[in-house]
Amino acid sequence: MIPETAFDALSSVLEGRVSRSKSDLDLHGRSETWFPHTPPDAVVYPESTQEVSQIMGICHAHHIPVTAWGAGTSLEGQTLATSGGIVVDFAHMNRILRVNDADMDCRVQPGVTREQLNTELRASGLMFPVDPGANASIGGMTMTRASGTTAVRYGTMRDNVIGLTVVLADGRVIETGSRARKSSAGYDLTALMVGSEGTLGLVTEVGLRLHGQPEAISAGVCAFDTIEAAVSTVIATIQYGIPMARIEFLDTKSVEAVNKYSGADFPLKPHLFVEFHGSDAGVVEQSEAFGELVSDFGGSPFQWATKPEDRTALWTMRHNAYYACLALKKGCKGLVTDICVPISKLAEAVEETAADIAASTLEGPILGHVGDGNFHAILLLDPEQPADLVEAKRLGERMAERALALGGTITGEHGIGMGKRSLMAREHGEGWEVMGALKAALDPTNILNPGKLVP
Amino acid sequence: MIPETAFDALSSVLEGRVSRSKSDLDLHGRSETWFPHTPPDAVVYPESTQEVSQIMGICHAHHIPVTAWGAGTSLEGQTLATSGGIVVDFAHMNRILRVNDADMDCRVQPGVTREQLNTELRASGLMFPVDPGANASIGGMTMTRASGTTAVRYGTMRDNVIGLTVVLADGRVIETGSRARKSSAGYDLTALMVGSEGTLGLVTEVGLRLHGQPEAISAGVCAFDTIEAAVSTVIATIQYGIPMARIEFLDTKSVEAVNKYSGADFPLKPHLFVEFHGSDAGVVEQSEAFGELVSDFGGSPFQWATKPEDRTALWTMRHNAYYACLALKKGCKGLVTDICVPISKLAEAVEETAADIAASTLEGPILGHVGDGNFHAILLLDPEQPADLVEAKRLGERMAERALALGGTITGEHGIGMGKRSLMAREHGEGWEVMGALKAALDPTNILNPGKLVP
Repeated sequence: MIPETAFDALSSVLEGRVSRSKSDLDLHGRSETWFPHTPPDAVVYPESTQEVSQIMGICHAHHIPVTAWGAGTSLEGQTLATSGGIVVDFAHMNRILRVNDADMDCRVQPGVTREQLNTELRASGLMFPVDPGANASIGGMTMTRASGTTAVRYGTMRDNVIGLTVVLADGRVIETGSRARKSSAGYDLTALMVGSEGTLGLVTEVGLRLHGQPEAISAGVCAFDTIEAAVSTVIATIQYGIPMARIEFLDTKSVEAVNKYSGADFPLKPHLFVEFHGSDAGVVEQSEAFGELVSDFGGSPFQWATKPEDRTALWTMRHNAYYACLALKKGCKGLVTDICVPISKLAEAVEETAADIAASTLEGPILGHVGDGNFHAILLLDPEQPADLVEAKRLGERMAERALALGGTITGEHGIGMGKRSLMAREHGEGWEVMGALKAALDPTNILNPGKLVP
Repeated sequence: MIPETAFDALSSVLEGRVSRSKSDLDLHGRSETWFPHTPPDAVVYPESTQEVSQIMGICHAHHIPVTAWGAGTSLEGQTLATSGGIVVDFAHMNRILRVNDADMDCRVQPGVTREQLNTELRASGLMFPVDPGANASIGGMTMTRASGTTAVRYGTMRDNVIGLTVVLADGRVIETGSRARKSSAGYDLTALMVGSEGTLGLVTEVGLRLHGQPEAISAGVCAFDTIEAAVSTVIATIQYGIPMARIEFLDTKSVEAVNKYSGADFPLKPHLFVEFHGSDAGVVEQSEAFGELVSDFGGSPFQWATKPEDRTALWTMRHNAYYACLALKKGCKGLVTDICVPISKLAEAVEETAADIAASTLEGPILGHVGDGNFHAILLLDPEQPADLVEAKRLGERMAERALALGGTITGEHGIGMGKRSLMAREHGEGWEVMGALKAALDPTNILNPGKLVP
């Protein structure tokens, strides 16, 4: 509960942009996935770094838990105020502050969404390529260390965030990074904050690296007879150094879901969805080289989507795959796993996972950003059947164990939140304790997103 | 001073690999640049992570300062035991532990040098491209967040270190990162350690990303009439997205130094040294596109070095430029500045720096990895003339202030050590205090490289 004096102080700072309406609390208690509904005690809507600093000052003084909210698209319960307190919704901080064409960077507020940013950039010849599928906020993507379909070419948020404004637990404001392309000036606080899920501070500005819009783009799909053939094609592609912009795997079940949901008619086989970026000649060279590999592994000839609208349709289908999978089973929720393994272990990891799911009581389409070695199983569970959640968690844990055994990680891009916290010690050992020590150093009273990520 | 009981404990753990010989202490008291000679109390030579852990246990118990030593090529006094205590020399930990061809990564001990690693990799078709010029150790490069001539294409140590084994101040051992290409599993401890200059822990293993040796390489030099023309060519090159592998600037004074030292006969004008990597066709395309830009800015036609031995000669000259510059003035020492600015500010930064140096009492050739916006002035000072050091520091400080005013950083790749510590608050403000809090959390008794980097 929030003491009334604190509530009044927040109201005064925010000129009334503090809400305790049931609908607002309900909305901010929801997640995209299976976590229980967890409404906060209040929702605040700051409009500036200074206001966020004042909010933290008040919450620090009153020991009020603070959880940040961007677009609410996280998958591990990162935005849920499980200890109560306030949710800071960055919806009003959604301005693009600067675009530096010459240096190919920009500065945005955390509530800007990736689609909004790319719409704004369209005329500049630049783009922000990191694409987790959902129209997430840049603040949320930063704090989750998100990536998605294009990371194989353009990197993740780790590679594309160049600086931050961060409000610390006690209200102090720091600037991390710079607009230079590199620096050796002390600890990399930017990298420490990226992926910290709001447990070390609240991000109020994000500096991003931008990329030139490619001269030519070509996308296509091809089908394979087996998972192994599809994944082996991916491994060979990466090893040959073909600079794919996107290379996505969908298993037969995912293809079935996409067909039903998006009215497509892909053959019911494992597929790769790919995209090439480059010069006109470069794209042709890349697609020919890739086509030869596909043929070596017995894949079908390509269906090309060369027109922009066809490409958009293709990637919209891919982006909607999560909802398409959920639609396979009426009223179900999804538990989305998210492991990432070294490329050489990818076929083994996917095949063993598929066998695991086949032997379980659940359905679980498999798909993912396989160019990074990252894939997901969307485990479909009936929220009325507690046994389903138990089974989904068992399968998820087996996947995580498998990822670790193969030299990989329990999460490629969705983060830890509540959902993967119990696995952290297994991945990091004593390193998880080190994370806890860092957290305690910056947030000694543990008001920033308590119950997430750290011990 | 080291208590005799501690010395005996170290001797016992290290089976005698503890030295207090004058020559050893003298050698480890030297730096490449102007810092005073600072011998430690002892030098230890561990052979395993376990031994390093035991060393830290002993030093933690006895409050003995610990400074790490790789190849001794750092430029800001990072390896100097300014508070006494022991230097941990990783010379015996110089094995390449694993090369994973299929995943293009490797695991090495910190004493491996970059030349040793690339020699070992030669037959594999892979390479480790980060190249700071000096034959630095991988451990030292990691802890300095080093980069160099190829960062414009392949990134810095930040981008190429995928995981670490770190011994903490109290002897605990953690593993950071994984072999997966990305992860969202908690705080990025790898990134926190990279660039921490031995103040947070001692690195005993480094996982590195490797890159394919390019199918074709082409290198060349061209001369310009003015600094401005040379630098404008660089800016245009970056903005056009030509994927340079190296693009180095040398001012007239640097060219004069190189000519004298390496017996070359480059015209006495500002130069760019460049290199292209790619397919045969790609390299031709890149060099033609670059050649057009050079011509637009009035540069001379290229002198190409197409044969491997000519390329080696070219880059050896570039790598020896520091010593070439020192040789301009008998008996001098160098104070090497190292700022990095946004590309669009590069011409301004270089020209104002050149004007500053021209108006000073010192000589200071300017050169650098301008594709990143990073350049150095090598300020030549007579160690017998205290006024020279004062003047060099004044010029260095002006450069740092200029970098910050232009949105850049006080050090692109050399790090902080002792030399730039007084400038940290100006770059990071409250963020420097945050670095101090992180340091205190992981090394509460301040035994790891005390006096460096943090407040």
